Amino acid sequence: MSWFDNSIMVQRGVAKGRTGTSHSITEASQGKYHYVYGPYAAPVLRVDPGAVISAETHDAMEGQIRSESDMPSDILNFPFLNPQNGPIFVNGAEKGDCLAVHIKEIVPRGPQPVGTTCVMREFGGLVGTGETAMLNAPLPEIVKKVEVDPVTGIKWNDKITLPYEPFIGTIGTSPEIEAISSLHPDYYGGNMDLPDIAPGSIIYLPVNAPGALLYLGDCHATQGDGELCGFAIEHPTVTTVQVDLIKGWTFRWPRLENERVIMTIGSGRPMEDAARIAYRELIRWMAADYGFEEMDAYMLLTQAGRIRVGNMVDPKYTLGASIAKSLLV
Amino acid sequence: MSWFDNSIMVQRGVAKGRTGTSHSITEASQGKYHYVYGPYAAPVLRVDPGAVISAETHDAMEGQIRSESDMPSDILNFPFLNPQNGPIFVNGAEKGDCLAVHIKEIVPRGPQPVGTTCVMREFGGLVGTGETAMLNAPLPEIVKKVEVDPVTGIKWNDKITLPYEPFIGTIGTSPEIEAISSLHPDYYGGNMDLPDIAPGSIIYLPVNAPGALLYLGDCHATQGDGELCGFAIEHPTVTTVQVDLIKGWTFRWPRLENERVIMTIGSGRPMEDAARIAYRELIRWMAADYGFEEMDAYMLLTQAGRIRVGNMVDPKYTLGASIAKSLLV
Amino acid sequence: MSWFDNSIMVQRGVAKGRTGTSHSITEASQGKYHYVYGPYAAPVLRVDPGAVISAETHDAMEGQIRSESDMPSDILNFPFLNPQNGPIFVNGAEKGDCLAVHIKEIVPRGPQPVGTTCVMREFGGLVGTGETAMLNAPLPEIVKKVEVDPVTGIKWNDKITLPYEPFIGTIGTSPEIEAISSLHPDYYGGNMDLPDIAPGSIIYLPVNAPGALLYLGDCHATQGDGELCGFAIEHPTVTTVQVDLIKGWTFRWPRLENERVIMTIGSGRPMEDAARIAYRELIRWMAADYGFEEMDAYMLLTQAGRIRVGNMVDPKYTLGASIAKSLLV
Amino acid sequence: MSWFDNSIMVQRGVAKGRTGTSHSITEASQGKYHYVYGPYAAPVLRVDPGAVISAETHDAMEGQIRSESDMPSDILNFPFLNPQNGPIFVNGAEKGDCLAVHIKEIVPRGPQPVGTTCVMREFGGLVGTGETAMLNAPLPEIVKKVEVDPVTGIKWNDKITLPYEPFIGTIGTSPEIEAISSLHPDYYGGNMDLPDIAPGSIIYLPVNAPGALLYLGDCHATQGDGELCGFAIEHPTVTTVQVDLIKGWTFRWPRLENERVIMTIGSGRPMEDAARIAYRELIRWMAADYGFEEMDAYMLLTQAGRIRVGNMVDPKYTLGASIAKSLLV
Repeated sequence: MSWFDNSIMVQRGVAKGRTGTSHSITEASQGKYHYVYGPYAAPVLRVDPGAVISAETHDAMEGQIRSESDMPSDILNFPFLNPQNGPIFVNGAEKGDCLAVHIKEIVPRGPQPVGTTCVMREFGGLVGTGETAMLNAPLPEIVKKVEVDPVTGIKWNDKITLPYEPFIGTIGTSPEIEAISSLHPDYYGGNMDLPDIAPGSIIYLPVNAPGALLYLGDCHATQGDGELCGFAIEHPTVTTVQVDLIKGWTFRWPRLENERVIMTIGSGRPMEDAARIAYRELIRWMAADYGFEEMDAYMLLTQAGRIRVGNMVDPKYTLGASIAKSLLV
Repeated sequence: MSWFDNSIMVQRGVAKGRTGTSHSITEASQGKYHYVYGPYAAPVLRVDPGAVISAETHDAMEGQIRSESDMPSDILNFPFLNPQNGPIFVNGAEKGDCLAVHIKEIVPRGPQPVGTTCVMREFGGLVGTGETAMLNAPLPEIVKKVEVDPVTGIKWNDKITLPYEPFIGTIGTSPEIEAISSLHPDYYGGNMDLPDIAPGSIIYLPVNAPGALLYLGDCHATQGDGELCGFAIEHPTVTTVQVDLIKGWTFRWPRLENERVIMTIGSGRPMEDAARIAYRELIRWMAADYGFEEMDAYMLLTQAGRIRVGNMVDPKYTLGASIAKSLLV
Repeated sequence: MSWFDNSIMVQRGVAKGRTGTSHSITEASQGKYHYVYGPYAAPVLRVDPGAVISAETHDAMEGQIRSESDMPSDILNFPFLNPQNGPIFVNGAEKGDCLAVHIKEIVPRGPQPVGTTCVMREFGGLVGTGETAMLNAPLPEIVKKVEVDPVTGIKWNDKITLPYEPFIGTIGTSPEIEAISSLHPDYYGGNMDLPDIAPGSIIYLPVNAPGALLYLGDCHATQGDGELCGFAIEHPTVTTVQVDLIKGWTFRWPRLENERVIMTIGSGRPMEDAARIAYRELIRWMAADYGFEEMDAYMLLTQAGRIRVGNMVDPKYTLGASIAKSLLV
Repeated sequence: MSWFDNSIMVQRGVAKGRTGTSHSITEASQGKYHYVYGPYAAPVLRVDPGAVISAETHDAMEGQIRSESDMPSDILNFPFLNPQNGPIFVNGAEKGDCLAVHIKEIVPRGPQPVGTTCVMREFGGLVGTGETAMLNAPLPEIVKKVEVDPVTGIKWNDKITLPYEPFIGTIGTSPEIEAISSLHPDYYGGNMDLPDIAPGSIIYLPVNAPGALLYLGDCHATQGDGELCGFAIEHPTVTTVQVDLIKGWTFRWPRLENERVIMTIGSGRPMEDAARIAYRELIRWMAADYGFEEMDAYMLLTQAGRIRVGNMVDPKYTLGASIAKSLLV
């Protein structure tokens, strides 16, 4: 029996790990992509728990950065950025439930070079931005296009090849009444840019609106911790996920499980607030589901907790706090 | 000629200071109040520039905290908090314009004691919150009801009376495609909790959506800098404003003018980011409209700029940066 | 009877308001100025409570920026910045006591133009710095020299004259065993850059080391909130203070009293942490000395507290939180 | 040839990897331990580059927490915390040089249980502290004593054993004129609490004072990212290091090298400022020594940089930013 068979998704989900119907969302069937996470868009798909969905995702720039001579700030037009597939209505999902999403596969699509990274004015982790306002002159803008191959990797230049380690940059459910830019990460998920949200992982998302209303997009071919300049290796993909529903599992912030760890995901500013959220949620989870006293969990995480910095460039910073499953005894 | 006749609103507005038609929004005509700032609600009113609007505002708790024995966290139900009047569609307003709102009057309404302040768990400037997550036990909840009289002031207790210094806690236009909780302050205004947004002032708001879609509510009878525990003297009011439109005056963050100063308003986390936004916007304004070189404005503000801390309790903190008009020579 | 006769300094000080002996610290008698607040330097003076001391202070650049064509980053040499007079050993002062310092007078000294402000690379509130590291190119450096006259004010340019509103930028006692750069503000005072520390005010400083070891310097002719570009109108002065000792009055952060308010001063990063410190200290003070329950003080400050932003440019940001004495009933 | 033979220490150090004389610092020869990093203490040892030094370190509580019934806040007495061995004067070291410290071995000393962790009031990552002031009641204090064995590990409880993964919590050189509490991390090193500073690594420290004046102490038997509650598994040790000197290698913040990566270490508040420092320093290092254009390094780190969170509990937070040596081509 694999770890997946013992996962929370399989153990507690409505579909109990059974693979349901398959669906695909093509560019054509998606039609208009979305730039907010909210309840005001009509579902592109309605599925039952257990359903497997393959979606043709755009890159975060909706494919508009076509050449290395393009000027990102001329082309990109806030708030019409980071296009999302969805929303997917999951039958039976109600506020207070949890939507489990098992990430099965991410493959690049489209002609090479399919990968793009950029330096764009007023955006990034080491420059003044709209949020951390500075008077300094902006950096020159740069576009870099790279070939991305699932097998041979990402050809950074003649000397450096990076492994293909894809993940979903932006995924989440709809807020109850808010509609928030897909550039933001928050309590419902969104633009977390956390590399652990990768094939093989299950992400658990709070359901705030009827049908959960799953959105996803913004897949990265690889990314360093913090997504320093603001653009990972952005690329269009076919991304395949399986959804399930855990009735009555109520929590505030996204959670994740893979073969090795459980993780909680916090987003906030300043960065320590993201870390505080992530660790407090992890303590609460360990107390609720794994038999720990809160103070014991607090002290054990002091010795064995791990932090992954997702992004340090989005309107909120995202961190994941995790502990090895082997210690949850 | 009063300062108002020389104000930007009068000098550059479509209505040029002329008083247009009068409108009122009663509780009945408002019907459903709103909990998000967004473009998805139908306008409650359509007006021309110059129109004067009186609105029956609720307090931030929608009047649900009725007695000092109430328990706020039992009663208040996120995200259905901070009810807003509106949206008011201003004819002719387009993205890139500025909506000018002259605040003419705020008077309390309803039976005494009309004022309410609270200490609520997981909310406030000196406690762990959902954003600054802590493990400490919450403070005990407290509700305090006070009489509020425009003439005699706010009867805090037998020994202390505070002056009635009302202002609008939450006011703004709609984002273009987002719908954001009315608990948030941001680039479009919202829950800024800045005491300068008071009768006699003009607030200038960026127009992001057709018709501007003005919302307002959450009036405070008085408030200290930072709104420390999170609840000013909240009270229901009749609030009267006059709107005008300044075509093609495009900026990112709210601005304010009164007899004495011009002010820019920034909201962000950490608090220094709110200060940076406010001061950078003020420099840009001084450069664009008052003949300053940016570096001169930067240095003059170093000697003569003023900062008002609006809130240090909301999802973003709000600060106003100002300079005396007498120095804009 | 003046407010000063009712001040804490007079009511609780060892000298009870009596003026003791007069002392002066000239450049010559100071000899070597100091660049750290610490217990390792020999006292320049030993005085009794009640003593009045006049000190010839340097400007923060030790007079090295002599002309508008100077390049600050070529001249200024960290850590030899912000030269301080002192330390002054106050007889009888022990850890756990409070040193009261009544600021009596600040007058400019030296040939005109005595005032200097600058823009220096990697320093200031709206640029990348050593603490908020950025990749953007620095701003061009600028030096501005201005005439400063106590009566006619500060001649900013042909059109703008600013009033002379001098205060002590850096003042404090020695830490117990630490010696910290005079560029820092912290629990012992230091480089707070808070305009309320002005003639007419009394600042109360915690005593951490025997003799208190008072340092002071860095007087400003005027300054806006936040000291935006990092250099107020820096000027050399003769600064006159009277010291007293309040035995056994133990607290962690500087406090201030003037005719109108009591104030607590917090320094920290991010800025909200400075605000939290200042307000928590004020609540504790109101509870300890003015008969408030902590929760009542918390709620009253929500309605009537005031915040002054001292600096947003130093290694810690400094804020003062205050309440009107008229409300301490 | 091992990676060590190719290390910067061996390639560029004065001793070129040759093992010099051996020294030991016992509790007796240390005599008084130190609580500040500064130039005011007499060296306990003078050594040449290449010297190997074994030091008997105390735990951060100087062994005063002896039993699980102790009350940390009664026993621990700021600023006399985190006792340090040293200072060690390295002959030939001058301001502008780099001190290389190869960590060779850490072994526990003293009777079992030698490991201690605590929850102490007003300290930790998920509680109000002296820096992040809150009104909430503190958590109850807890002391946990654990057996620590280099081979069998750390016996957390009957079910959980953690591996022995020791590192030096606090290590650094002296500032030039400051003397800063050993509880602080900063540009000279200090209380970084970064698990990468472990046997097998070389840490490179900027020399600010003659002789470098190396201090070290505060070894941890293991620690999670962030040192959440503020106390790792603190334990007394014999720690062995080898020092070398790299003349004229000048940089501002600590650097580290091990078999796999190069790392830069930033400390600051808010946490994003620590991350910014670390990444900017890494970009500068890659540009200065590895042939990268700064913008290329910025973009490559976006895809391949890694962040380790050392502490989120000290007066400044510490993060390490790293890149695999295999990518430095």
